[in-house]
Amino acid sequence: MPVDLDRIDDLFRVRPGKKFRLPDHDPAWAGDPLEPEKKRREKAEQLLAADVEELARMQELLWASDTWSVLAIFQAMDAAGKDGVIKHVMSGINPQGVEVTSFKHPSAEELDHTFLWRCMKRLPERGRIGIFNRSYYEEVLIVRVHDRLLRAQRIPGIEPRKKTWEDRYDDINAFERHLVRNGTVVLKFFLNVSRDEQRRRFLARIDEPEKHWKFSASDVAERGHWDAYMEAYEAALAATSTDHAPWYVVPADRKWVSRAVVAAVLAGTIGRLGLAWPEVTADKKQAIDEARRKLMAE
Amino acid sequence: MPVDLDRIDDLFRVRPGKKFRLPDHDPAWAGDPLEPEKKRREKAEQLLAADVEELARMQELLWASDTWSVLAIFQAMDAAGKDGVIKHVMSGINPQGVEVTSFKHPSAEELDHTFLWRCMKRLPERGRIGIFNRSYYEEVLIVRVHDRLLRAQRIPGIEPRKKTWEDRYDDINAFERHLVRNGTVVLKFFLNVSRDEQRRRFLARIDEPEKHWKFSASDVAERGHWDAYMEAYEAALAATSTDHAPWYVVPADRKWVSRAVVAAVLAGTIGRLGLAWPEVTADKKQAIDEARRKLMAE
Repeated sequence: MPVDLDRIDDLFRVRPGKKFRLPDHDPAWAGDPLEPEKKRREKAEQLLAADVEELARMQELLWASDTWSVLAIFQAMDAAGKDGVIKHVMSGINPQGVEVTSFKHPSAEELDHTFLWRCMKRLPERGRIGIFNRSYYEEVLIVRVHDRLLRAQRIPGIEPRKKTWEDRYDDINAFERHLVRNGTVVLKFFLNVSRDEQRRRFLARIDEPEKHWKFSASDVAERGHWDAYMEAYEAALAATSTDHAPWYVVPADRKWVSRAVVAAVLAGTIGRLGLAWPEVTADKKQAIDEARRKLMAE
Repeated sequence: MPVDLDRIDDLFRVRPGKKFRLPDHDPAWAGDPLEPEKKRREKAEQLLAADVEELARMQELLWASDTWSVLAIFQAMDAAGKDGVIKHVMSGINPQGVEVTSFKHPSAEELDHTFLWRCMKRLPERGRIGIFNRSYYEEVLIVRVHDRLLRAQRIPGIEPRKKTWEDRYDDINAFERHLVRNGTVVLKFFLNVSRDEQRRRFLARIDEPEKHWKFSASDVAERGHWDAYMEAYEAALAATSTDHAPWYVVPADRKWVSRAVVAAVLAGTIGRLGLAWPEVTADKKQAIDEARRKLMAE
């Protein structure tokens, strides 16, 4: 089943230079509303299965051709389904070809470096897919919402820095351009969950004891800043969705939608690189033939 | 003795926007030619001693005020005296406040990342001075001279990339801007040795068995590409000497000159940050007083 990445781009990719408003993106989007939801869901799940398979093939090709790496960044409000997307989309892939990094509270050592540093260290090597579960974008999201500049970024004599967020967008764009220029494909996914759906999922976590480990009271507190978060996401996505490193706003109220979209973008984008299996040279072929002869004669 | 950094800037700092030609910089420069060389050397050595002392104080202040780090990059032809400068200028400093990294041939893991990556990992943390003995600048110098793009940077479908060097200068400038914006002072030193002086030093290494460990036949081979190297240095310094991260062309035919200049730039630049010792707050003072009382009563 071919991945129709162009259509997905039209629907979900944030285009640089075009006015971007988050409210134009419906978290509950789920395909053609004329079709019954059950049927749409079945189709999406088939698509997901096909794309997961395709992605596994693409990752092998990425590894064999040894020229590109892929960095996929996931950002979202709590309970938007980041962990589930990563699990379901990447589950078919050879674990040697993938590195997932979850960025939590920065360590003292990390705070002692620039806000990009801890992510720089975890960049995927050639042939691999690197997944960032949260990333340096936290530094223009939660940090902005709480107007809580990390101490590391407070430079006396320069604070208060009104230009801080613009400077950071600018640094991020330059950093990602460097990655792309040097052979890392950069894809960014915002899992766009609605406030209502987040509430439902939080309640589900509270009601089911086996989901309590996922629940933290501070998550509910963050919910109180919903509008400020949406403003911060809108500003960040508008400023940092570039031709070389695009953002996708992925509808996340239905998990089967977000998983299908992310799988399609990943498989489709690697497909667009036009990678080829390494050709076996005449020399190599001769060496292989010789090896075969020797082994047969043993 | 106050460091006259303005005068040193006038003489050796590469100014963005101004025409830069390497031949305008005399590797044998050694101060006022009307004074006898012996006297000039004595004065330079006094200055070096004073600046090394000042630098040690500045580094303590850097550590205590915990807001800035300093990155000093050294690039030069072989036998220009990089190791000697680092040894003599940094010798008075608390080793906990300095990290020196020498970049040699990249490892397989390093080749599997972008050309900035291995240096990113070694950035100095706040309060510290990081010294790069060679750096990512090798990637626009030796790599350019030998037109030997690392395999990691060869992207099929994009090669041959005529814009490679410009792209790299651009990435380097953005990277250094990011560092400065986030509290790392960036200083870059090109130790400018002449071809004749390099020859003398190579012969000295060959003649003195105790210096043989420093000698490698491939160094002499590189000498054959002298003009190509000078072109590459000129282009790189012109493109990447910015207001935020300047290059200094340090006369290196006389070691006492290059050491004095580097020490003066380092101590003077940290001095310009206007750092202050952390103030002891009333609370802290009270806590200290209380601790004293308790200890006295023991």
